[in-house]
Amino acid sequence: MADERYEKGIAQLSLMSGGSVHAMLDNLKEISPALARLTVEFPYGDVVSRPGLDLRSRQIATVAALTALGNAPVQLRAHIDMALNVGCTRDEINEVIIQMAVYAGFPAALNGMAAAKDVFGDRDRKGLS
Amino acid sequence: MADERYEKGIAQLSLMSGGSVHAMLDNLKEISPALARLTVEFPYGDVVSRPGLDLRSRQIATVAALTALGNAPVQLRAHIDMALNVGCTRDEINEVIIQMAVYAGFPAALNGMAAAKDVFGDRDRKGLS
Amino acid sequence: MADERYEKGIAQLSLMSGGSVHAMLDNLKEISPALARLTVEFPYGDVVSRPGLDLRSRQIATVAALTALGNAPVQLRAHIDMALNVGCTRDEINEVIIQMAVYAGFPAALNGMAAAKDVFGDRDRKGLS
Amino acid sequence: MADERYEKGIAQLSLMSGGSVHAMLDNLKEISPALARLTVEFPYGDVVSRPGLDLRSRQIATVAALTALGNAPVQLRAHIDMALNVGCTRDEINEVIIQMAVYAGFPAALNGMAAAKDVFGDRDRKGLS
Amino acid sequence: MADERYEKGIAQLSLMSGGSVHAMLDNLKEISPALARLTVEFPYGDVVSRPGLDLRSRQIATVAALTALGNAPVQLRAHIDMALNVGCTRDEINEVIIQMAVYAGFPAALNGMAAAKDVFGDRDRKGLS
Amino acid sequence: MADERYEKGIAQLSLMSGGSVHAMLDNLKEISPALARLTVEFPYGDVVSRPGLDLRSRQIATVAALTALGNAPVQLRAHIDMALNVGCTRDEINEVIIQMAVYAGFPAALNGMAAAKDVFGDRDRKGLS
Repeated sequence: MADERYEKGIAQLSLMSGGSVHAMLDNLKEISPALARLTVEFPYGDVVSRPGLDLRSRQIATVAALTALGNAPVQLRAHIDMALNVGCTRDEINEVIIQMAVYAGFPAALNGMAAAKDVFGDRDRKGLS
Repeated sequence: MADERYEKGIAQLSLMSGGSVHAMLDNLKEISPALARLTVEFPYGDVVSRPGLDLRSRQIATVAALTALGNAPVQLRAHIDMALNVGCTRDEINEVIIQMAVYAGFPAALNGMAAAKDVFGDRDRKGLS
Repeated sequence: MADERYEKGIAQLSLMSGGSVHAMLDNLKEISPALARLTVEFPYGDVVSRPGLDLRSRQIATVAALTALGNAPVQLRAHIDMALNVGCTRDEINEVIIQMAVYAGFPAALNGMAAAKDVFGDRDRKGLS
Repeated sequence: MADERYEKGIAQLSLMSGGSVHAMLDNLKEISPALARLTVEFPYGDVVSRPGLDLRSRQIATVAALTALGNAPVQLRAHIDMALNVGCTRDEINEVIIQMAVYAGFPAALNGMAAAKDVFGDRDRKGLS
Repeated sequence: MADERYEKGIAQLSLMSGGSVHAMLDNLKEISPALARLTVEFPYGDVVSRPGLDLRSRQIATVAALTALGNAPVQLRAHIDMALNVGCTRDEINEVIIQMAVYAGFPAALNGMAAAKDVFGDRDRKGLS
Repeated sequence: MADERYEKGIAQLSLMSGGSVHAMLDNLKEISPALARLTVEFPYGDVVSRPGLDLRSRQIATVAALTALGNAPVQLRAHIDMALNVGCTRDEINEVIIQMAVYAGFPAALNGMAAAKDVFGDRDRKGLS
């Protein structure tokens, strides 16, 4: 039932967010409780938790797509952070973003790189790799 | 010098295209010799051949980005083919594309999946995995 | 549980597709059974079936968005068809698409209008309004 | 003649903006008098004032499209405000934006929802529904 | 009045289309008479006919934008054709499109170049430069 | 060799940036030394320095594309500035941006115009045309 998916989504989100899931969820719920619930259930409960692709590869895909689309800097930063939480290195994130210069143009890559730099700075301050 | 980058790009493209690089290049050159040369030199000679990220992850990033952008079906098919050539499984490609429903919407994912189905069919006919 | 959402999605899709749901689903399943299932469950089972907005308004929103994004002509035609099934008139569809010239540019509106013309022609052949 | 379209556009804009048209226009004119004039004449004088679709439906279409495109947050906020002025409820706006998660992805919907939250807050402070 | 803008738009379109305006308009009117009229009046009557920028530069801007957006191949071909009619050379069109690899990515540039190749072939058959 | 392209790119960038190339480069390098190097080599060393199109036309193409794409305001401002450095007038920039209302919609044009206004203000303060 719905609660099962929600619990599964919360567990997945906790795994990926390095424990900061409550701050993230509170932020989402403040914007819209309905959309917050759907965000837990569908992306995390239904999709990212599917077998068949490791989480590191999943986050590479998401960082690539959000850099290429270029219109969601807040979400891009959150997903770069999660990518580092699930095993990507900073160098790998840099390479994914540089590669987007080829497929989505230099402005998209430059803005993606600025987002990565912000995340790396935040993690430095927290003592995270 | 320029020829060195071009040769490096051709080698990289050969590695990724499973030997069909001449057909691909002839096609590109027929459209524009200048753009064909730049395509060999920059994406393949300068970027994708960089150390710091394995080719399988690079192709996951590209398939994700082209599915999300949704405006280059020919290139998406070529990159799904290359992804399979460098070690991705069909299941992994399916998962990357399904995940794009979350980040770029269902129409982008459905069109990406139709592209993957075309590539899988072509590879079946050639006896490729 | 999942089957409940799937059944709810199928019922919603049937309501909107004027009975042609099996052809549509078969087409989706042939591309990817997993994505077909998610498409029934999330867009139709979870979202479009929510209370709070009538179906006619929901389809106006979808036709507007797909015309503006401009990269999913197959899905745009399907949603124009569904819009007419749930109570929009052809004139209303024309107006939504013309309005997209303002917000997404004339090429997007012209391509949206060509899609609408195709759908209107198909419905003429079937004797539908 | 041109002045007739301009007057028609101003009347339409006044109707939709709840009387704040002068602030809006001044803002536009400060950026570019030529583009301000064209904005009054074409979107408001020629398009949105056309018969064949009610204003509430027109604003649903515009809010959907701007949420999906995701690159014009200032204009999205202005159109959410106008949607509420011409008869949409806050719940209906929430539903349109949630639905965009399906067609343009969750990041687009989350950013759209943040814009709506800003507008709802502004209207609360003004005592508007 | 409206007819004046329409006549001005038709004159502008004739100037740019090298005399094939009737075929183009008939095609547009068949899709939608209302959108055909708005297309003559606003893009051609109001905007492209403005002083302050030469037609050759205007077409460079349009070819660049449509190549970068990548979702309107029919309109891109029409505008490449008009660009050649108003004084751009084929080499200049090639350069504009190659440059879009930098700002919108290689897939956009490659698809733009394929569109240009089609137009050049059509013009060869008509004996046009 | 690579250094030759880098030197060529720096020379091209200096020509276009009116001497402020060091501030620009430092900014880029701080975000990512690797992407900064690629930005000098490919866009400036390989592409924009190609013969076949004058710099003024090249900047018109770039300003048009970035206005239409709408997701890179920082880069748009930098390219409007460079366009003025290489011979475009402020009026010409205004016209290019207004024209984007036709091809990418009014929100894109309005945001492009706001970027131009910022650049014009900066240049006023520096006594530049």
